[in-house]
Amino acid sequence: MKRKNCMVAQSGGPTVAINASLAGVIESAMKSDQYDSVYGSLNGIMGILNSDFINLSEIITENPDYLHRLMVTPAMYLGSCRYKLPDFLDDDSSYVYIFKQFADYDIGAFFYIGGNDSMDTVLKLSEYGKRIGSPVRIIGIPKTIDNDLCETDHTPGFGSAAKYIASSLLEISHDTFIYAVKSVTIGEIMGRDAGWLTAAAALARNEYNKAPHLIYLPEVPFDKEDFLLDVKRLLFEQNNVIVAVSEGIRDASGNYISASEQSIDTFGHSQLSGVGKTLEFLVKEKLGVKVRSVEINVLQRCASHLSSKTDLEEAFALGKKAVALSEEGVTASMATIHRISNSPYQVEYGYAELNGIANEAKSVPAEWISDAGNDIKQPLLDYLTPLIQGEMDVTYQNGLPVYMNVSHLAKRP
Amino acid sequence: MKRKNCMVAQSGGPTVAINASLAGVIESAMKSDQYDSVYGSLNGIMGILNSDFINLSEIITENPDYLHRLMVTPAMYLGSCRYKLPDFLDDDSSYVYIFKQFADYDIGAFFYIGGNDSMDTVLKLSEYGKRIGSPVRIIGIPKTIDNDLCETDHTPGFGSAAKYIASSLLEISHDTFIYAVKSVTIGEIMGRDAGWLTAAAALARNEYNKAPHLIYLPEVPFDKEDFLLDVKRLLFEQNNVIVAVSEGIRDASGNYISASEQSIDTFGHSQLSGVGKTLEFLVKEKLGVKVRSVEINVLQRCASHLSSKTDLEEAFALGKKAVALSEEGVTASMATIHRISNSPYQVEYGYAELNGIANEAKSVPAEWISDAGNDIKQPLLDYLTPLIQGEMDVTYQNGLPVYMNVSHLAKRP
Repeated sequence: MKRKNCMVAQSGGPTVAINASLAGVIESAMKSDQYDSVYGSLNGIMGILNSDFINLSEIITENPDYLHRLMVTPAMYLGSCRYKLPDFLDDDSSYVYIFKQFADYDIGAFFYIGGNDSMDTVLKLSEYGKRIGSPVRIIGIPKTIDNDLCETDHTPGFGSAAKYIASSLLEISHDTFIYAVKSVTIGEIMGRDAGWLTAAAALARNEYNKAPHLIYLPEVPFDKEDFLLDVKRLLFEQNNVIVAVSEGIRDASGNYISASEQSIDTFGHSQLSGVGKTLEFLVKEKLGVKVRSVEINVLQRCASHLSSKTDLEEAFALGKKAVALSEEGVTASMATIHRISNSPYQVEYGYAELNGIANEAKSVPAEWISDAGNDIKQPLLDYLTPLIQGEMDVTYQNGLPVYMNVSHLAKRP
Repeated sequence: MKRKNCMVAQSGGPTVAINASLAGVIESAMKSDQYDSVYGSLNGIMGILNSDFINLSEIITENPDYLHRLMVTPAMYLGSCRYKLPDFLDDDSSYVYIFKQFADYDIGAFFYIGGNDSMDTVLKLSEYGKRIGSPVRIIGIPKTIDNDLCETDHTPGFGSAAKYIASSLLEISHDTFIYAVKSVTIGEIMGRDAGWLTAAAALARNEYNKAPHLIYLPEVPFDKEDFLLDVKRLLFEQNNVIVAVSEGIRDASGNYISASEQSIDTFGHSQLSGVGKTLEFLVKEKLGVKVRSVEINVLQRCASHLSSKTDLEEAFALGKKAVALSEEGVTASMATIHRISNSPYQVEYGYAELNGIANEAKSVPAEWISDAGNDIKQPLLDYLTPLIQGEMDVTYQNGLPVYMNVSHLAKRP
């Protein structure tokens, strides 16, 4: 049987695990007897529309050690996009062109690594492919630091972000405990609609560190008066109060606590920043104590120097699983992680249809949040703990981590 | 000869190297035939005023492996303070009490680890000690992420902060390059008056990464029009422009570019934040491109998981040097680092009098800044490069770095 080629692309927001899935796809596809070349489409689906490809199997064949370096490189080696395909019933021109490209490049399988918006692209391409009777197998590979994809126990990228957030909170605690004066520190954490990342701040707690002392997730309506009472009560007992808060907290009417800088992105999401500052000013005004806010910034999604080995190994395994699924003839699906047990931590890999994933989001269950709505419960901690275990072996050169050369991304129009 | 005890304390803002100097003091003093117990004063000079001491030699004797763990623990194991001693000619009551404590605890030497404000305390205590003919030797040990202490080639804590900043800028570059759209990213870096930390962002550059493309230090008056022209010119040539800017940049009249949240700390410094946001809004308004600002937050001074081995080893060596100096009868001085050569990197340790250090600050020399005032020159890069070399061996447990238990700091009034 003549071998086909395959193609892979990455889309959505960066994580430190998305290149590990790419590495898994490349390694498996290069070993496969069904596939010949592995093409990378640059900037997600845009690369297919612009004929912007690189031959990944060639690059890896020439430099086999690049596979490990790719695995620990942050963000997208192939670049990303925030492009939403139109409904093909309204306009099928891009679909016609994409499947012509698949035919021209003799593509047998297309792998798309992304979050719930990217799975919308996978779903639409799958449905169009089915309609025209295309043999191209189309498989999604999950990634998102937000951990809000349905049908998978958790998502690659989340465990590393959780590890970064917990380590940062621990280090910020050390930074906070040094002054014997009353103070409040507010850590603002990513996660627009789901509180998984903010919950991960609880992993910073240990025998001497009870911080963060308060945790506010977007799943619970935020009440400023309750918040001030929580902080006041703790300040009565101790000097330093450290709070972890999601960027996406809203009041009972659904209004963001920080609405000062809203704008709308391509997918209609509000872009937020500033809830930390808002609460900082509130505490300063109402409680009059020393207060600071720390925005746990984009490093939480790109700090590959502190990734979770468990996370990256799972991301790699999902890339391999996607190739295996395509070899078995599976299409119109996303590779998934199923947890068998917390302790010992065991998972198996499977797949799910896209209808329940694309454009859907998974929140933190109410039963994992404290009744007062200002902390998480033990089962959530048990769920989170295995995901941050282990450290990757990152090479340093001249004092800095060594990542993949991404100069090909600078050459785009 | 009967042995005396010695005492050590830490003061000012946190760094990741200040506990390495403490470890150096403890190790040397415990081996010394001049000293018996090593007392730690909690919260700097406040601990002496409050009789808040811990016996460090006891703790280390019981757990010898704590010395390495202490070395990699961020911030101050002994806590800090921002307490400025009054002039003893105005009010000598605290001086009388401090030297009574020294006598009661049979203290032969007092080591104070801190920045230029803390050296003010060392200077005042030294002068008072001289006046009353006290035999207590008083030695300062430098630390500050700002690298702005005079008389020493560089300061412990700076190299690790520089390494964190450069690594972060490299990772933020990967996070930025993924989208094929025009964008500006502004990284705001600490350093109120001196641009050393912001300059360190240049260490992120490598064969594929030219970011940060622009660097603005507080040593150069900042001109908004020039800045917009710089950014526009680069956006013409490339998609993504990444800017490193000091929190302390000022215009030609000396006004801070971000003056929105000024307040004054104990030492009369303006507390700043928000220059990143100010420039973000400026770019959005004037150039209309996608723009974001990233405040490189307090992690730059407390991320011990990414410290520079060179920095921590030098901090440890300075702690040992301070003990050796006191044994030789030196007092009223600060231990210093002298650079012998860049390549191979070689230093030796010495000491300097406090008059040229306390309350003084060292700026980045004009000849190390580009003529256009928007970048640094090669000699500054050569100066910075050795300081970020090497990585410490940090132990991880349950997914997080293992640091020293600081629960003793929570027990303070």
